[in-house]
Amino acid sequence: MEMISLELIREISISSPTKIVLLVIDGLGGLPHSETGKTELETANTPNLDKLADKGICGLSDPVSRGITPGSAPGHLALFGYEPVSFNIGRGVLEAIGVDFDLQPGDVAARGNFCTVDKASLITDRRAGRISTEECAELCRLLDGLVIENIKIFVQPVKEHRFIAVFRGENLFPAVSDSDPQQLGVTPKVITALSQEAERMAGIANQFVTRVKKTLAEHLPANMILLRGFSKRPHFPTMGEIYKLTPVAIASYPMYRGLASLVGMEVLQTGISIEDEFMTLKQNYASYDFFFLHIKGTDSAGEDGDFDRKVAVIEEIDRSLPEIMRMKPDVIVVTGDHSTPALLRAHSWHPVPVLLYSKWCRPDRVSEFSESACILGGLGRFPATQIMPLAMANALKLTKFGA
Amino acid sequence: MEMISLELIREISISSPTKIVLLVIDGLGGLPHSETGKTELETANTPNLDKLADKGICGLSDPVSRGITPGSAPGHLALFGYEPVSFNIGRGVLEAIGVDFDLQPGDVAARGNFCTVDKASLITDRRAGRISTEECAELCRLLDGLVIENIKIFVQPVKEHRFIAVFRGENLFPAVSDSDPQQLGVTPKVITALSQEAERMAGIANQFVTRVKKTLAEHLPANMILLRGFSKRPHFPTMGEIYKLTPVAIASYPMYRGLASLVGMEVLQTGISIEDEFMTLKQNYASYDFFFLHIKGTDSAGEDGDFDRKVAVIEEIDRSLPEIMRMKPDVIVVTGDHSTPALLRAHSWHPVPVLLYSKWCRPDRVSEFSESACILGGLGRFPATQIMPLAMANALKLTKFGA
Repeated sequence: MEMISLELIREISISSPTKIVLLVIDGLGGLPHSETGKTELETANTPNLDKLADKGICGLSDPVSRGITPGSAPGHLALFGYEPVSFNIGRGVLEAIGVDFDLQPGDVAARGNFCTVDKASLITDRRAGRISTEECAELCRLLDGLVIENIKIFVQPVKEHRFIAVFRGENLFPAVSDSDPQQLGVTPKVITALSQEAERMAGIANQFVTRVKKTLAEHLPANMILLRGFSKRPHFPTMGEIYKLTPVAIASYPMYRGLASLVGMEVLQTGISIEDEFMTLKQNYASYDFFFLHIKGTDSAGEDGDFDRKVAVIEEIDRSLPEIMRMKPDVIVVTGDHSTPALLRAHSWHPVPVLLYSKWCRPDRVSEFSESACILGGLGRFPATQIMPLAMANALKLTKFGA
Repeated sequence: MEMISLELIREISISSPTKIVLLVIDGLGGLPHSETGKTELETANTPNLDKLADKGICGLSDPVSRGITPGSAPGHLALFGYEPVSFNIGRGVLEAIGVDFDLQPGDVAARGNFCTVDKASLITDRRAGRISTEECAELCRLLDGLVIENIKIFVQPVKEHRFIAVFRGENLFPAVSDSDPQQLGVTPKVITALSQEAERMAGIANQFVTRVKKTLAEHLPANMILLRGFSKRPHFPTMGEIYKLTPVAIASYPMYRGLASLVGMEVLQTGISIEDEFMTLKQNYASYDFFFLHIKGTDSAGEDGDFDRKVAVIEEIDRSLPEIMRMKPDVIVVTGDHSTPALLRAHSWHPVPVLLYSKWCRPDRVSEFSESACILGGLGRFPATQIMPLAMANALKLTKFGA
């Protein structure tokens, strides 16, 4: 089936007063517990989600493609309807978004590693012994704020040995090679321009690396850096343009706030708890027609391998669900951006349960929100990029294609 | 999954004596009635369709993509195996087909609106108060048959304020802009050539509009026209070329007869009733190997919001089904071109039940032809463009792909 382009959606979408809530339970999908044979979602007591599944239509979605484990960015871009392989975000930009760095349109961001080199400048550890986040922050303070040829360079810690370097100034183009050779026993690579206009960027980046090497000389094991993924904030068509929505994000973690902002959502201030986020939704319900509500706790628990905590977070969401339903959204979609089975302690490739409810959804026979029930759902198994067109259709916000 | 191209199908298709019947119940899919929880198809008493579902294999198809509501043209093109986003038919041509206008290969057709303009020529009503079809026909008679620079212009009514203008003569190219600005308070736009070769077309179209304006001056509210969708009859590869079939259409409405003709089907004369159409099938069964049988009543009832009438039409089809089965087609497919739920009074995005029966179909466990039963069918949920390859395979008309 031909991919339906955002251009086509833009042509047939119309503005209307109906409202859509997209409730994203991060890392929702799981794997069965060895003792019970039930996944986290199947273990959780979820009377409200089950009732909604009974009235609604269910299915399983693939964020990228069968077998592909998505990161947070492709997972969310797919949910917002952007084909995640085409709509690529540079590594540097992604890391900058993840630490809430306020990237300006002309900025070039790179992902950095502190690393260890020997006296011959050969890399002996690409992660400088995984120094602590605190040590990383201290080193970043040493490097932050350098100015080279009128370019200001911001250096900010991410986690452990990871940091971001953001180059700000005029005429910077990100088409330069990485300095990170991704192997040991060789020297960091000289950064080269991949297009003529990027020569200035390459020159400044190399000067920066030289200056950093001097500054870090005595800071073993972190006596050198590796840079990769030079990139600018991409210019994506906005959800406002494509869907004619006034979309808003309610998310407490920087990565998701940043991704929402990249697709043109307004991002609200909110607290860290589910209660806070639901309250923010309630307070702002009158002002928007699309709500991306992001819940992080399930993914964190999954990554920690904490099956029971993931179950508990799902149950907490279920208890709060009636608060959303009382606002009577025209369409509610409950799903995840990917699976994070506690048994794997990581994101995974498993498809994600999807539940859609609207007055026009044509209910199926699924009466329980779970991985195994969703297999038999009326939505079938489908690419996550089709969730937005479905939600739009159910909100009667898409006109007919062709006469 | 990679799209299977028509080119590939053409390479592996073979001619054979087996026969395929494609029974298209227009707007077949529905939504459940609030009192019974059953759709039109689920409400209808359909012992013959159910028996066929029991022996055959079922599924649900998406004419374009999840969430996309197809018009009649994309819906049918998909059923004939033509990817409906790529195989685009211009708006003018589609309207001309819809009123059974005999479009010649060089003709350029435009869709027209009668509209109202004020003394400053600003548009005050894009639809001239939705004048009646009779008034429209009268105005069209005033305009029909003009000749400008050897180009003859046919003007024929469609419905209410809508008409078609067909330009016939030498060296006409349709790449010109619309005069319809799609908004009020502005003047109709001058039609401009979008390629050099279309300059003659643009000039003639503008002269035509000027002449029409004079003629209509005293015919308020219809004192001006708007033109859009200038297009020529497209040149699609025929079903004969692709599938090596001798295909024929049995349809009583101009739109479907026209669409069938565009993909190279012969179009038979038939009556308006289901009985007439089935009789036509019977009388011509020996002469063709592919039969597109189109039934309109279900869609009309759906668009009228008449749940019970749609049920009744489905029941009438079911009663007539044995007549087809007695001819023992090698493959029969029963499906629709899209859903038209009576509750929505319009085409919709919901997937369409598909039933295929052949000696080689590998039956599933579905024993009832309905939306909810088809969810669990062996065909799964799939793009409607794959129905033709499936029918061809079941008729043993496709050879192996690759050695």
